[in-house]
Amino acid sequence: MPIETVSIVGVGLIGGSFGLALRAAGFTGRILGVSSPRTIEAALARGAIDEGRPLDQAAGQSDLIYLSQPIERILEVIPVVSRLAPSRALVTDAGSTKRRIVEQARGSFTSGALFLGGHPMAGKEQRGTERAEAHLFQDATYVLTPLEGQLPTAPIVDEFVSWIRKIGARPVVLPSAAHDRIVGWTSHLPQLVATALASSVAENVTDENSLQVAGPGLRDMTRLAESPYDVWKDILATNSANITQALDRYIEKLTELRNELPGPRISEEFEAARQLRRKLHPD
Amino acid sequence: MPIETVSIVGVGLIGGSFGLALRAAGFTGRILGVSSPRTIEAALARGAIDEGRPLDQAAGQSDLIYLSQPIERILEVIPVVSRLAPSRALVTDAGSTKRRIVEQARGSFTSGALFLGGHPMAGKEQRGTERAEAHLFQDATYVLTPLEGQLPTAPIVDEFVSWIRKIGARPVVLPSAAHDRIVGWTSHLPQLVATALASSVAENVTDENSLQVAGPGLRDMTRLAESPYDVWKDILATNSANITQALDRYIEKLTELRNELPGPRISEEFEAARQLRRKLHPD
Repeated sequence: MPIETVSIVGVGLIGGSFGLALRAAGFTGRILGVSSPRTIEAALARGAIDEGRPLDQAAGQSDLIYLSQPIERILEVIPVVSRLAPSRALVTDAGSTKRRIVEQARGSFTSGALFLGGHPMAGKEQRGTERAEAHLFQDATYVLTPLEGQLPTAPIVDEFVSWIRKIGARPVVLPSAAHDRIVGWTSHLPQLVATALASSVAENVTDENSLQVAGPGLRDMTRLAESPYDVWKDILATNSANITQALDRYIEKLTELRNELPGPRISEEFEAARQLRRKLHPD
Repeated sequence: MPIETVSIVGVGLIGGSFGLALRAAGFTGRILGVSSPRTIEAALARGAIDEGRPLDQAAGQSDLIYLSQPIERILEVIPVVSRLAPSRALVTDAGSTKRRIVEQARGSFTSGALFLGGHPMAGKEQRGTERAEAHLFQDATYVLTPLEGQLPTAPIVDEFVSWIRKIGARPVVLPSAAHDRIVGWTSHLPQLVATALASSVAENVTDENSLQVAGPGLRDMTRLAESPYDVWKDILATNSANITQALDRYIEKLTELRNELPGPRISEEFEAARQLRRKLHPD
C-alpha cells in the first residue's frame, strides 16, 4: 500500500523543505503538519503542508511520520508516536545525531509501526520554515540508520527510500554509532573550530579598523559561526564523547604544527590537507 | 611628474592583476614585466604587461616599481632595486608580511628613490598570471606600511595612492609590525586552522564512503587548505612569532571549549563568535 498521508512533525527548515521537496518530486498525497500555530501558518503559506493537525490526529492517519524537531524533542516524542502510529506506518526522523535517537526508538518500537533513523546532510545557517526550499536535499547525502544492521525489508521502507532518491538525495545506510563518529569529525568539529576561531579573533583583534584588514579567508572560516547555539545545544549534548575525541586529536595536530613552525614538516601537513580536498572534490 | 612607466617585478596572480587593473582603470603609460620567459609570454597574452624586460633595464626607466614576487625574493631584490631605481621613482611591494620587508627597505632606500610597503588583501587559492583579474582588488583593503610612521609627502606617493583607489581598493596606512600582528590573526591563523582541520579529518576519517557524510561545513572550512605550501612557506618564516602567539591563544580557546562540553558556557562562545560576524558584515 503506497504512502498516501505524510505527517511532518516540526515544520522548520528541514521539515518544511521535506514537504516542498515531496511536492516538487510529484507526491500527490496529503501532507499534514504538526507545529506551533505560527509555524503552521507560515508552512501553509509556503505550500510545505496541506493542513495543520495536533500530533494525535495527524499520527493516527499517517503512512509516513517524519520527525524533524530538535533532537531533545524527537527523543521525547518517539514513545508517544510509537503508540499513536498505525501498524502500517513508517516513522523516521531527521535529527543530526543518531545513536541516542535509535536507542530510544529501539525501546519504543517493539511492535506495529516501523522506525528508521535518518539524517539528511543538508541545511544552512538560517532556520525556520520561511527558509525552506524544495531543492535543499538536491545532491545531499541522506544517512539512514536502521534499529538493527540492515534496512527493514518492507514495501513502505522501499517506498520511503525511493522518495529520498526522487527529492535528489543519495541514501547511505550506516549504523547509528558510525554515523555519530563520522559527523563528529565532518560536521561538529568544523562548527566548533569556526566558533573558536571567530571568538578568539574577536578577543584579540578588538580595534574595528583592524578588522578591515581581514581577507576573504577569515570570512569563509567563520561563516559557520553564525549558527545559533540553540541548534547546537542538543547536538553537543548527544555526541559529546565523539566531539571531545575529535577536538583532542585536532588540538594535538595544531600543537604539532605550532611546534614545527616554520619548519619543513609543515609542508607535509599542507599536502595531507590538499589530499583531503581532492577526496571531497574528486575532479 | 606623473607615473608614465611601471615595472611589475614578478608577474604572477597579484602582479598580473595589478597590470590588468591599472589598464582597466585608465592607465595609459607603459607596463614592463620582469619574470621568467614563460610567465612573460603568458602575461603578454593576458594583456597584463606591454613588454618583458630584464630587471636592470626595466627598473632604470620606471617611475613606479611594483615588487610582487614571493617574500624571500622581494627581500633579495630590494637592495638591487634600490641601486637601479631612478631617484624620481617609487618602489612598492605586495608581500603578505611587512615587518621584514620594511626593515630591509629601511636599510637599502637611504637616499634617492622612495619605498612604500604594501599588501593588497586580495587573492585566491590558485596562482599564476593565467588567473590574474582586473577586478581582483575591487573592494579589497590595501594596506600601506611606510618606512616611518606616515606616508612620505611626495607627489608620486599621492599618485600611487590615487591609483590604488582607482583600481577599487581601500588604502589603509599601518605600521608594519601592527600589520603583521593583525594578519597573523585574520589570515595566517585561519590558514593553519583549515590546514590542520583537513589534515586531521584525513587521518581520522579514512574510509572513502564516510567522506560522503561530509556536509557543506567541512568543504567551506577546508577550502583554504588548497593553498600550496610554497606560497605559505615565506609567510610562516617571516611572521612566526605572531602566528605562534595566535595559535597558542586559539589552542587555549579550543581547550576551554573542550573542557566545557557540552555545558552552557559554550553558548557564550557562540554569541562572541556571532558578534565578530556582525562586525565583519555590518548589515
